[in-house]
Amino acid sequence: MADPSTSPSLTRPSVLEARELIKGFVHHTPTLTNATLDSLASTPLGNRDGDEKVEGRKSASPKIRLYFKCENLQRIGAFKIRGAFHALERLKREPGWEEGGGRERGVVTHSSGNHAQALALAARTNSIPAHIVMPSISAKPKIAATKGYGANVVFSGSTSVEREAVVMKVIEKTGARLVPPYDHPDIVLGQGTLGLELQEDARDIIAAAAGADSKNHEAIPAERGFRAPITTPNLPEKKRTSPGLDAILAPCGGGGMLSGVALSCEGTGIRVFGCEPWFEGADDAKRGYESGQRVEAVSTLTVADGLRTPVGKVPWGIIYERRLVAGFYSVSEEEIIAALRLIYERFKMVVEPSAAVPLAVALFNEDFRSLVEREGGEDGWDVGIVLSGGNVSLEALGTLFAPKEG
Amino acid sequence: MADPSTSPSLTRPSVLEARELIKGFVHHTPTLTNATLDSLASTPLGNRDGDEKVEGRKSASPKIRLYFKCENLQRIGAFKIRGAFHALERLKREPGWEEGGGRERGVVTHSSGNHAQALALAARTNSIPAHIVMPSISAKPKIAATKGYGANVVFSGSTSVEREAVVMKVIEKTGARLVPPYDHPDIVLGQGTLGLELQEDARDIIAAAAGADSKNHEAIPAERGFRAPITTPNLPEKKRTSPGLDAILAPCGGGGMLSGVALSCEGTGIRVFGCEPWFEGADDAKRGYESGQRVEAVSTLTVADGLRTPVGKVPWGIIYERRLVAGFYSVSEEEIIAALRLIYERFKMVVEPSAAVPLAVALFNEDFRSLVEREGGEDGWDVGIVLSGGNVSLEALGTLFAPKEG
Repeated sequence: MADPSTSPSLTRPSVLEARELIKGFVHHTPTLTNATLDSLASTPLGNRDGDEKVEGRKSASPKIRLYFKCENLQRIGAFKIRGAFHALERLKREPGWEEGGGRERGVVTHSSGNHAQALALAARTNSIPAHIVMPSISAKPKIAATKGYGANVVFSGSTSVEREAVVMKVIEKTGARLVPPYDHPDIVLGQGTLGLELQEDARDIIAAAAGADSKNHEAIPAERGFRAPITTPNLPEKKRTSPGLDAILAPCGGGGMLSGVALSCEGTGIRVFGCEPWFEGADDAKRGYESGQRVEAVSTLTVADGLRTPVGKVPWGIIYERRLVAGFYSVSEEEIIAALRLIYERFKMVVEPSAAVPLAVALFNEDFRSLVEREGGEDGWDVGIVLSGGNVSLEALGTLFAPKEG
Repeated sequence: MADPSTSPSLTRPSVLEARELIKGFVHHTPTLTNATLDSLASTPLGNRDGDEKVEGRKSASPKIRLYFKCENLQRIGAFKIRGAFHALERLKREPGWEEGGGRERGVVTHSSGNHAQALALAARTNSIPAHIVMPSISAKPKIAATKGYGANVVFSGSTSVEREAVVMKVIEKTGARLVPPYDHPDIVLGQGTLGLELQEDARDIIAAAAGADSKNHEAIPAERGFRAPITTPNLPEKKRTSPGLDAILAPCGGGGMLSGVALSCEGTGIRVFGCEPWFEGADDAKRGYESGQRVEAVSTLTVADGLRTPVGKVPWGIIYERRLVAGFYSVSEEEIIAALRLIYERFKMVVEPSAAVPLAVALFNEDFRSLVEREGGEDGWDVGIVLSGGNVSLEALGTLFAPKEG
């Protein structure tokens, strides 16, 4: 990892620069819309098919149009590839790194998840050796995938102390540079590039739909992504001069992506919210944000396994100290699974459980929905949703959704 | 259904006309690419990870670039909506239909699959009553979905004789017009519109990738869909003046979509192939095509449940009599499931088993692969793949992919 002191400032222009550096290596993933999910999000809780009636309480009645950034279609199946490529581009530019034999010494990280594969692929593309420390109990397909990208997989015990000890040994032996999964400016700036694409794509889709409306009162699907306003029930198009997103909902684990997206929105007026599970205290960022004190350790087995990590220090500075994230919302395990089911059944996308958390907030979190009702009024809100990744085994899905016995 | 004698001629210009008629009602779905699947398709059988070695036989070694037409992202989750909307637009234009009270009398069909939901939605959009005859043993979610689109669901026994008897009763009672699922010119022309979009999108993606290559030798993802040539191993871009598809692989059940796609390619030089399962004789179109005699009855329980139907008469005229389909390929159940798994795990798309059949042909059928090797040579082929639909229950998926016991 490049010495953080050589990293660019944590600003929107730096995210734009990061985009230039990685654009030959990552996909501009599609931003898609879905009329059924818009309609559900715009129907009060308790009025939807299959809902239990909520007695004695009036549910919020927001108008919500959703724009899904499909990072499940990204290379290696997750946004993590953006940060990994950006980290290596910055490393290559660090004064003295190349001359000092940095390329031969390679890079190292510990991860059993998407960051492992991301760094492995980015390193291979750059002909740099990558050492990935993984717990020996990691799922076999993940080990195989990481090896498949040409990385040297080194096994460790499963506690963070054991993993870090093995990383230190690798560094001593090889001189490899550590590339952490989220707690570094270069990673944050790389992940933030998805926020730029989402903003631009949503603007294009909104403009195309508005143009179609004014032309013939029939909706013509937009060129990039699509909307089907014909059957979107009772969702008035927003009248304004500069159409674009009102908000983005992004999942928050270590906070690298959330804080990068927040940087990408700085000065645009788009509000960025973090989304977490609350099961077993997985809502560490929310609790920290509300108490003013970063929560440094979390132990949770939430189904959203990508979000079991506490927020890192660098992301925290952006999220909380600079207040570039407008707030946090959390959801239950049942709400995450319900959103996951809708993404599969109605949106036809394969995503991992973590990626369903923002949609769960839009559909089920009454605090968020009240905010949209209050502030969006009759026009409603255009809300970007980050579908962060799609790496889930079919066996795990099978277990999650197998028919109930009896 | 409009009287077939009032239907337009079965030609490419009629498909273009159909597109104009339905364009406010259906999505222009995305066409996407995937480097991993390109690479697998361009690796000989026996040389892939996990392949069994094929002894004593040299596997074909084609170069294949795939362009996936994502009709799983279409409204109601399948291409069938195109034919249904087109059929209704034609019906509305039939002389005397409106004046004779046709609108009030409505439409009727028998289907327990995607056509049921397609006709229900198209009819509701047009404020025309729809009667859908479904076997009383149909899956509850399918019945609920069809009712959810506002259709009048009428139950019948499950044999085709029983179903048709109930349809006749509905017609006698209501005067509703029959809209069959595939065996009608208006349906064929409607489904063919996806072929036009696929041709155009593929051309754009190929041109964008070629432009990026010539500019800086780095691949910039195309604006619509994406390619990642940087890591596509050893796939030389084709050199030619007019880039576009060489072939389209489409699944074949009743043949409405396959024959429509064939019409959309007439005169373009793009070869269209039908893809079928062979389990229990599901390859009826292939057998018919080779013997010169349409097979009129099939009884199969192939996992590709959308393809259990024999080819209809109208499609047959296009497919066989006019030879607008260049040939058929069939695959095993195991090959279909392997392709389905790859679409989920590597392409992150939810599709129904029928939609995986064309990819199974591209990956596993040695006859097809030898053809591409022979005719595509070093340049290889650009092959369109129709992902026909994504309507599969998570419970069914869970059963298909649940971890094996023991």
